[in-house]
Amino acid sequence: MKKDFTRYFYPNSEKVYVSGKLHDIRVAMRKVNLTDTVNIMDGKRVVRHNDPVYLYDTSGAFTDPAVEIDLDKGLPRMREAWVAARNDTEQLPEISSEYGRRRQADKSLDAIRFKHLHLPRRAKEGKEITQMYYARQGIITPEMEYVAIRENLQNEQLGIASHITPEFVRNEVACGRAIIPANINHPEAEPMIIGRNFAVKLNTNIGNSALSSGIEEEVDKAVWSCYWGGDTLMDLSTGDHIHETREWIIRNCPVPMGTVPIYQALEKVNGVAEDLTWEIYRDTLIEQCEQGVDYFTIHAGVLKAHAELVGERLTGIVSRGGSIMTKWCVNHNAENFLYTHFDEICEIVKRYDVALSLGDGMRPGSIHDANDRSQFLELDVLGELTEKAWAHNVQVIIEGPGHVPMQKIKENMERQLSSCHEAPFYTLGPLTTDIAPGYDHITSAIGAAQIAWLGTAMICYVTPKEHLGLPDREDVRNGVIAYKIAAHAADIAKGYPGATVRDDALSKARFEFRWKDQFNLSLDPERTLAYYKESSVNDGEYCTMCGPNFCAMRISRSLKDCIK
Amino acid sequence: MKKDFTRYFYPNSEKVYVSGKLHDIRVAMRKVNLTDTVNIMDGKRVVRHNDPVYLYDTSGAFTDPAVEIDLDKGLPRMREAWVAARNDTEQLPEISSEYGRRRQADKSLDAIRFKHLHLPRRAKEGKEITQMYYARQGIITPEMEYVAIRENLQNEQLGIASHITPEFVRNEVACGRAIIPANINHPEAEPMIIGRNFAVKLNTNIGNSALSSGIEEEVDKAVWSCYWGGDTLMDLSTGDHIHETREWIIRNCPVPMGTVPIYQALEKVNGVAEDLTWEIYRDTLIEQCEQGVDYFTIHAGVLKAHAELVGERLTGIVSRGGSIMTKWCVNHNAENFLYTHFDEICEIVKRYDVALSLGDGMRPGSIHDANDRSQFLELDVLGELTEKAWAHNVQVIIEGPGHVPMQKIKENMERQLSSCHEAPFYTLGPLTTDIAPGYDHITSAIGAAQIAWLGTAMICYVTPKEHLGLPDREDVRNGVIAYKIAAHAADIAKGYPGATVRDDALSKARFEFRWKDQFNLSLDPERTLAYYKESSVNDGEYCTMCGPNFCAMRISRSLKDCIK
Repeated sequence: MKKDFTRYFYPNSEKVYVSGKLHDIRVAMRKVNLTDTVNIMDGKRVVRHNDPVYLYDTSGAFTDPAVEIDLDKGLPRMREAWVAARNDTEQLPEISSEYGRRRQADKSLDAIRFKHLHLPRRAKEGKEITQMYYARQGIITPEMEYVAIRENLQNEQLGIASHITPEFVRNEVACGRAIIPANINHPEAEPMIIGRNFAVKLNTNIGNSALSSGIEEEVDKAVWSCYWGGDTLMDLSTGDHIHETREWIIRNCPVPMGTVPIYQALEKVNGVAEDLTWEIYRDTLIEQCEQGVDYFTIHAGVLKAHAELVGERLTGIVSRGGSIMTKWCVNHNAENFLYTHFDEICEIVKRYDVALSLGDGMRPGSIHDANDRSQFLELDVLGELTEKAWAHNVQVIIEGPGHVPMQKIKENMERQLSSCHEAPFYTLGPLTTDIAPGYDHITSAIGAAQIAWLGTAMICYVTPKEHLGLPDREDVRNGVIAYKIAAHAADIAKGYPGATVRDDALSKARFEFRWKDQFNLSLDPERTLAYYKESSVNDGEYCTMCGPNFCAMRISRSLKDCIK
Repeated sequence: MKKDFTRYFYPNSEKVYVSGKLHDIRVAMRKVNLTDTVNIMDGKRVVRHNDPVYLYDTSGAFTDPAVEIDLDKGLPRMREAWVAARNDTEQLPEISSEYGRRRQADKSLDAIRFKHLHLPRRAKEGKEITQMYYARQGIITPEMEYVAIRENLQNEQLGIASHITPEFVRNEVACGRAIIPANINHPEAEPMIIGRNFAVKLNTNIGNSALSSGIEEEVDKAVWSCYWGGDTLMDLSTGDHIHETREWIIRNCPVPMGTVPIYQALEKVNGVAEDLTWEIYRDTLIEQCEQGVDYFTIHAGVLKAHAELVGERLTGIVSRGGSIMTKWCVNHNAENFLYTHFDEICEIVKRYDVALSLGDGMRPGSIHDANDRSQFLELDVLGELTEKAWAHNVQVIIEGPGHVPMQKIKENMERQLSSCHEAPFYTLGPLTTDIAPGYDHITSAIGAAQIAWLGTAMICYVTPKEHLGLPDREDVRNGVIAYKIAAHAADIAKGYPGATVRDDALSKARFEFRWKDQFNLSLDPERTLAYYKESSVNDGEYCTMCGPNFCAMRISRSLKDCIK
């Protein structure tokens, strides 16, 4: 694979590392260097320094010029030593899944296969290895300290003592209010935390369908989405070579990755939902656990009894997993095998510390169907499954809608907290109106900002192509930025410590006509600069928006002087 | 001027007219025709008709193929007869403003002058002619019946009796909770209403600055913004030929137009704020009243005593009008002449029924400055001025911020309602974070949706170019659509009667794979179709997003059959 297509750098920024106090860890963050403020006072030039701003950085080693990137080898395996040091896992002599072994033996796949495969690890027999287990034992892992430092960077900068300590992180994970998705077989990922007492996170979806896109394109989109600010990444591929594509992505993915295993299981039975079996699904779970998937969406809350409620809806079932499992239940006149085998699912995933994202197969696909019986009945089942998973020390998040008008958003959050015992909520938008296909990153950013403010821990982005086609690179960028906005607006509204540092630094730069600083502090320095250049006729103290006489900030600054 | 560049048509739509019952009026709306639903049941083709959907239509005669458009002559003057019939106004023998006469006499402007000037009308001496005056007298004007029908179209379609009657409209206007901006000299505009008990409206800003853009471009942007859904239009031009540009826009503008007269007044004194005088401003008001401006932003609430509070702010004053007037106050050590002459302003504007939009010169320019003392002190002054204007039967709206983080939005709405006696609130966004220049249509749509839900009557759009440059056509389109989304999401959340009709029809079309209907019902049929085509390999029952095996809706529809 080409080596350089993933290297983008943030302007006037450095990758810096903060060391741990409990563990030998280095937490990566981005430092944006600013120019000085220059004022003319009483005819003299007065220069004042502006402190750099430290930003949460999801881009991984790709933005560190000191790290050599080789996509064929994958990213540095930072967590490998941490995992090994715990001495509760073992490297397997070969991969365990039958399907995985078959793919490995297939010579015809050599050309597209990832070049430097590692043997998987698994918990030793009888050992518990999830972050939730450690947390409940009172152990602060390197992962926990890592996220405590990472979440805290603005406070460090401001010299503010924060309640977000490693011990706080441990406690949140122990009681299930937060998760650290960290499969032991994805040591390339930098630890991050999802929980409503932390910064709001955003997930990006990539993945090909049967109709499009190749491996290189998917790896590119993965790295690209992390560059713009994606906190986790779901590979929703449904086309050919799912197994091989996933390997390439995981090995080069600096953030936790999730999947919906039923998609691949369905491919294995040639798209015929009725032919799905627990055995095929089980083998798929193991296959993906050993590749390093950090969390699985499992549609175990879709019950046979709920199928008939679909008839009440305007838009039926719009979750792919939900529709597949409902079809299976109806055809077999049997209960959802993900529900009946849920304990076995937990037994499997806990040996790799894969977290579960309990899927909302009954999420509304139109504002008409929001908050209806099927949706909330399923939510109650997800609450029941949450307790089951927690009994296995398996980390859990709960998926939520979807399409919800603004006045019905609050009920979603309140019901989720009570039905699911405060397990983190992870919503798709929600879209607040159905009338704007082509702009659903906006219809949904409106809903996402609100639900995140109310307590949703992670929001899944929606791109402008939603409902119309697969997102391309530009759609990914637009989707991520819209969701960074929603997440950040929610962090501010929640009063998250230090959330306004970046806003204030950017606004100060704007007021002082430090244009470059304004751009460099923005979510999209490249686009701001391009827009500015497009319409600017100079680089002085005004832009084409107001022209020289009408620049309020210019007048206002001159006023500050004359009032003094 | 070229004649055809303003003609765009909505796909599969017709312009239809609904007749009044009280008055001889024809209310324009858009009818979207839908295709039939075709199902195969028991091997037979079952066809069901889908009713057309009626949409509020801001695009004016441009989208009526039966109307001939001639930009040189301007739009049909629908309200001319209504105004004349009231017999309380008179046509003037010449225009009243000194500046206007000077421009008219200037031969060098002939080339760019609008070709078919009309003589202005004004209230007869001693006559009251504002919509508020009529309403208070118990008179239901054609304008009031027009907006009652216009606001009601979804209910008519659904056969629902609505509380939104002409009498309801009259009462809302009488007590100042709503305004119908309708200068007697802008008879081309179709009446519309701004008030929190009606559908949320959106304003678009256009206008050139000293650095850019010509008359044809501005007329194009005006028509274009109405096509996408702008309810009113502000011409914020600050460059050359403001007078002539405005004439062209008003004569071809199917929606009410607002301006900020201080901008032009400042041009008349070559950009030197200190040189502004009441006399120059007064002449500017009259000039614009007689051209047909429907509402004026007046920064009369910026007081001398507030100037010193600016020092407490991170970003000072960001309202152009606010900074100009503050500079004037400070330099002259005198009270704002807009405040001291406010009664005279009312005396002038009431003779043309120009509404006042009381400007928020102290709106916060960063989330840091939101809800601060300067902002709320000014709001109290605006409340005082509201009562003064109402004593003159002058219609009033109140401008609001700006940059406000989500948790501080509610206080803005509550204070506005109490300080300003329920006069309609008209906000710019608000932007909920400062970190996303280049995407401020999104940061602000999030805030606009929330504040509109809480009761803001009109939201002023923000385009992606905000803070960076003047919007071009594409920015106008993106800004309008983002704000249509925010306004519509708020209408749904408010429970506005019939608000979900379009959503439900579109979702039904989506579920039934009536792709074209889905596109035609969307806010941007052109873009949805383009996105779809870009990624579609056929026009069957799935798109590239999921491919054939994974289309949840397809599976879900097939399920509906097997459950039955």
